[in-house]
Amino acid sequence: MRKSICFIAAVLLLFSTLHAWAEDNYRLWLRYERVTEPALYNNYRQSVKQLIFPAGSPTLKVAKTELQNALGQMLSLQPAEANTVTANGTLVIGTPQTSTLIAQHRQELNTIRREGYFIKNTQQNGKVTITIGANTDVGVLYGVFNFLKLLQTHSSLNHLALIDQPKIQCRILNHWDNLDRTVERGYAGSSLWKWHKLPGYIDRRYIDYARANASIGINATVVNNVNANALSLTTDYITKAAALAKAFRPYGIKLFLSIRFSAPVEIGGLKTADPLDAGVQKWWKDKADEIYRYIPDFGGFLVKANSEGQPGPQTYGRNHAEGANMLADALKPHGGIVMWRAFVYDDKVPDDRAKQAYNEFKPLDGQFHSNVIVQVKNGAIDFQPREPFHPLFGAMPKTPVMMEFQITQEYLGFSTHLVYLGQLFKETLASDTYAHGKGSTVAKVIDGQLDHQPLTGMAGVANIGSDVNWCGHPFAQANWYAFGRLAWNPEQSPNTIADDWLRMTFTNDAAFVNPVKQMMMDSREITVNYMTPLGLHHIMGRDAHYGPGPWVAQAGRPDWTAVYYHKADSAGVGFERSSRGSNAVAQYFPEVRNQLENVQTTPEKFLLWFHHVSWNYAMPSGRNLWQEMVHRYYSGVDSVRNMQKTWSLMQGKIDNERFAEVKDLLAIQEQEAEWWRNSCVLYFQHFSKMPIPAGYEKPDHDLAYYENQKFYFIPGTRGVQ
Amino acid sequence: MRKSICFIAAVLLLFSTLHAWAEDNYRLWLRYERVTEPALYNNYRQSVKQLIFPAGSPTLKVAKTELQNALGQMLSLQPAEANTVTANGTLVIGTPQTSTLIAQHRQELNTIRREGYFIKNTQQNGKVTITIGANTDVGVLYGVFNFLKLLQTHSSLNHLALIDQPKIQCRILNHWDNLDRTVERGYAGSSLWKWHKLPGYIDRRYIDYARANASIGINATVVNNVNANALSLTTDYITKAAALAKAFRPYGIKLFLSIRFSAPVEIGGLKTADPLDAGVQKWWKDKADEIYRYIPDFGGFLVKANSEGQPGPQTYGRNHAEGANMLADALKPHGGIVMWRAFVYDDKVPDDRAKQAYNEFKPLDGQFHSNVIVQVKNGAIDFQPREPFHPLFGAMPKTPVMMEFQITQEYLGFSTHLVYLGQLFKETLASDTYAHGKGSTVAKVIDGQLDHQPLTGMAGVANIGSDVNWCGHPFAQANWYAFGRLAWNPEQSPNTIADDWLRMTFTNDAAFVNPVKQMMMDSREITVNYMTPLGLHHIMGRDAHYGPGPWVAQAGRPDWTAVYYHKADSAGVGFERSSRGSNAVAQYFPEVRNQLENVQTTPEKFLLWFHHVSWNYAMPSGRNLWQEMVHRYYSGVDSVRNMQKTWSLMQGKIDNERFAEVKDLLAIQEQEAEWWRNSCVLYFQHFSKMPIPAGYEKPDHDLAYYENQKFYFIPGTRGVQ
Repeated sequence: MRKSICFIAAVLLLFSTLHAWAEDNYRLWLRYERVTEPALYNNYRQSVKQLIFPAGSPTLKVAKTELQNALGQMLSLQPAEANTVTANGTLVIGTPQTSTLIAQHRQELNTIRREGYFIKNTQQNGKVTITIGANTDVGVLYGVFNFLKLLQTHSSLNHLALIDQPKIQCRILNHWDNLDRTVERGYAGSSLWKWHKLPGYIDRRYIDYARANASIGINATVVNNVNANALSLTTDYITKAAALAKAFRPYGIKLFLSIRFSAPVEIGGLKTADPLDAGVQKWWKDKADEIYRYIPDFGGFLVKANSEGQPGPQTYGRNHAEGANMLADALKPHGGIVMWRAFVYDDKVPDDRAKQAYNEFKPLDGQFHSNVIVQVKNGAIDFQPREPFHPLFGAMPKTPVMMEFQITQEYLGFSTHLVYLGQLFKETLASDTYAHGKGSTVAKVIDGQLDHQPLTGMAGVANIGSDVNWCGHPFAQANWYAFGRLAWNPEQSPNTIADDWLRMTFTNDAAFVNPVKQMMMDSREITVNYMTPLGLHHIMGRDAHYGPGPWVAQAGRPDWTAVYYHKADSAGVGFERSSRGSNAVAQYFPEVRNQLENVQTTPEKFLLWFHHVSWNYAMPSGRNLWQEMVHRYYSGVDSVRNMQKTWSLMQGKIDNERFAEVKDLLAIQEQEAEWWRNSCVLYFQHFSKMPIPAGYEKPDHDLAYYENQKFYFIPGTRGVQ
Repeated sequence: MRKSICFIAAVLLLFSTLHAWAEDNYRLWLRYERVTEPALYNNYRQSVKQLIFPAGSPTLKVAKTELQNALGQMLSLQPAEANTVTANGTLVIGTPQTSTLIAQHRQELNTIRREGYFIKNTQQNGKVTITIGANTDVGVLYGVFNFLKLLQTHSSLNHLALIDQPKIQCRILNHWDNLDRTVERGYAGSSLWKWHKLPGYIDRRYIDYARANASIGINATVVNNVNANALSLTTDYITKAAALAKAFRPYGIKLFLSIRFSAPVEIGGLKTADPLDAGVQKWWKDKADEIYRYIPDFGGFLVKANSEGQPGPQTYGRNHAEGANMLADALKPHGGIVMWRAFVYDDKVPDDRAKQAYNEFKPLDGQFHSNVIVQVKNGAIDFQPREPFHPLFGAMPKTPVMMEFQITQEYLGFSTHLVYLGQLFKETLASDTYAHGKGSTVAKVIDGQLDHQPLTGMAGVANIGSDVNWCGHPFAQANWYAFGRLAWNPEQSPNTIADDWLRMTFTNDAAFVNPVKQMMMDSREITVNYMTPLGLHHIMGRDAHYGPGPWVAQAGRPDWTAVYYHKADSAGVGFERSSRGSNAVAQYFPEVRNQLENVQTTPEKFLLWFHHVSWNYAMPSGRNLWQEMVHRYYSGVDSVRNMQKTWSLMQGKIDNERFAEVKDLLAIQEQEAEWWRNSCVLYFQHFSKMPIPAGYEKPDHDLAYYENQKFYFIPGTRGVQ
């Protein structure tokens, strides 16, 4: 009889995984695949037989539903609901307010503050239990998601003693989504937000979006582009935004809006948007009051001002602090904050654009009101494949400073290149500013440790769109995931994060996880090699930033060209930012500055970022600079081919659909890596006058061919609205 | 033991339907839900125990995979594969080329021609079999999909004797999709076609799109907008289109392209696009040759010429036949065809735009080459909620004429209104032209019966986009489905089609199917009532066509306004198209013309289409015209409220997600129906000077309020590209 049952069970299991409709990758890392290894399956089932989880609030309800659905899918099990522990294998979940069993755990509760949670094995009434506790409902939600992660990654449920809480307060996505549903630098279809159908129609995706974010600890989102349209502050659009906020609310996600600084003129009928004008101040105060009537937990404003043509306080002869403080004062009574971007540059072409943000903001340190936080990009140029950390980190001790990473791959191959950004994020976070001596990492600046900042945040420019798989490339989901994990705790390792993500998204099969994780871990360096090795930067195609464009010499202004940045000539290549050049190195603390001042001590990966270096310069490898550059470009392409080989071995280990999809995409990546390599090598050869060393395959075409290629309708390039 | 097994099976069945990820409506009508009624489940399983289906070609392979996956999902069963019939319950599938068992059925095979199929119960070796046979691989595919439909709709598999074949050759979708992925009149997100990632990346949706189309007999698609960009004929874009064609090919779907008539100038470097110029003719011939090198089964060109600003032969002093024939000659050697649209009007504002297509095309009858087909919209204006049939149907006996329906709801509430278009399509198809006396229906014109045309077609302007649920509104999927079914056979009943669609898309539960089907069947008339009752037309908002705009008096040209069409004044309302007016009625055959000439015999539904009628005109209801109009607008809104009541009773009969989604959408529909009603009643009251009769709820606002409402970023309104 046991055999028969097992046979039938096996048959049914077989057919439950058979679908005429292929794997569509919509479910992200929350797939909750059935646990098929028998010992583990039985062990898990024994561990969650009973459930004590009183759930009255919307947040607790969604946490409980998530848990029940996931256990159903993974273990074919619904734990029996109970009020007291009467059996081994009881899950106890809640807050001190919902459960006296939780309230007992005073020590943990005192440690974890507002959003943290603990998961531990305990004994109640002599029975083995697992307890998930938190001080708040959202803490419970985070605890449940992390408990489910344990099951999804096939972790042991014995000896659980997890105490976890976020190190950063505001973990926020920035959507550069226009109201017409185009997405600036979006490579995954159009905007998720169906403004036309709002507020009446709540797309199920809004809820799945909130779920996915909550599962990795993201607790805020800016739904409209920093290049903002004033209309988003009209009552009609506030009503629409309120419907989104309502959908997100149970998942602990606060809604923010980007604002256009000149909105009082454009939709308010005022003559000025001068932040010191009393009428303007009143307009913003009234507008904030109105927003909070619709969205009581509204987060606040994100502002791009006096940058790339956006209006701002400087338009009226005021400085950034004056602009930010006016908005902050309007939000203050409601608890809202202002995220004021430091990505600015004025109309004059600077000697070095890398220096501008520091020059403008450093003098304002201490002048911002307490509910303003300055949002600084990871590097001083613009989300390049590799940048040294931004000199503003650590430089404004009296001002909260938050990180802005770009998750969407504007400069990293859009949604056709497999590039795991965990490594990029981590490289910046682990960089040492030396602001208070050794160990003053960027992570410690932005988590508030270094200067005891009460307001902290990390923003990621989202790579999420209407594509069924959310991010365009299956592996681009990993970058959304890694951003969330690192915003929760910047100390986490990209390796661990990749491991978890692969297990949850694909399979726990080590024969898949290990080689593919290695591929992910290497992928960012590979991309740097075939795009911008040795500190090269900003040499991509004009406007759309598609593919290589080291030859770009004409653009709206010189600091939008490539030649401004690489400065290749017959003598060498690179931007001299030491004291012999723009002296941008002076913006760093002495330990860093001294290292970068000297070409010999400058890390090879930043060589051409900081120095104009002779083509014949002897590199540590024994090659000269030209040969090293050629070597990097070729090795980048070779590495992509190795990624293809690795991937081809994964056939059969995962579903055919995603296997084929990634295979297609890697083939495109290989083509485009070659395109980068050939274009850049041929272009720079024009200056180095040295041959491509023997043994390297020759470019398919001449330089003119690459320079004259034309592309149309490149994603992400629509202007504002 | 049986009990234990059944218990385990039940538990597994339960959990296989539990998903943390909600119903997303992606699977359309191909859901293949498990058959849960025990008797039916057993009966079906007994009927398909064995399978004889040799499948060597790509088309047979996809048919077989579809069958196997569907049986797995519906019946938890994989039929044993066999070469000979050795058991009762054998499925025999194939063509005479693949199976001698099929070749025996000479009579059926002789009847069904190229794309037909038969499904019948037979005896082989004394065993009960079901045989699905066809002359071609694609016929087998259609047979398999229709067999699966029998299972999905819980039909009996006894006494099967189906012989089915399409009545129309070219069953084609027209995508008004721009190369930048915006969609003109698209309300379901952006274009499916990811041109930037083509040809390297084949989105799984391309294949699911092809599957869905094949399942309802659609065999062709035009992937780019009729307002075409010449770039789509460059080698780069042909390569991309070829990748789409390759994905579609196994499903029997041919790819067509819209062309821009002036492409020889724009991308060919010629000085003219004059169709009589030898250089131009050669350019098109070379271009056709090139396309066929990449796409050997390319379908041909769709052309919008000399219409709404598009270039065309008249630009060079030539007529439509001369333009079409030049293109046809280029395609002819390869077997391609030209679909030349009759939706034209010149730069001069006509006395009656309704007459233009007939006036321009009727004189050209007989002048088109044999591989040209003229594509005529269902009515003479533009896809209004209701139009009389286009007078060109039946009027060009020497020319193949095909139908153009609009599936996307440009004038029917976008993707927020539930409007089943089966009724609209059928109304036109069943209209009698009297071209060869009584019974000369539009259906018989376009299926070629009436004038023995060898080339036939029906086009539908697609409502498909990147939204996860494909069409924006769950019920909009029914319009794609109904279009396909009616293109296959215009004689089919919209009721049957709705019944099949509901069963396949939602449930076979009669308590759901019957009331919801009635709602679908009524929905189009309801929409006519709250938008454009009694023959009113073209009174929607300017440009975006969003909501009411009877007051629109300023537009690019008078025949783009509303007042041009409704001609409301103190005397009455309506466009006089009898001999006392524009005499558009003269374009119809005498029986129709005479009926429409007289206000008394004109069907009430077309009253104001053909006549300017006094506000006091006595209607058959006993109301005067004004009262009748008010009555219709109010009853339209009341009917939507009844739809809401019907739908609210469906809770629990289907998944919560789609229930909630449709509920949201019906609430929007109710609001917008009120908006239409209030706007139109208040506007026309301005002329009728009569009160809204007692007992009707008063409009919430005055007319000025409605006239002054502003909307931004309305879907579907981006210009070309």
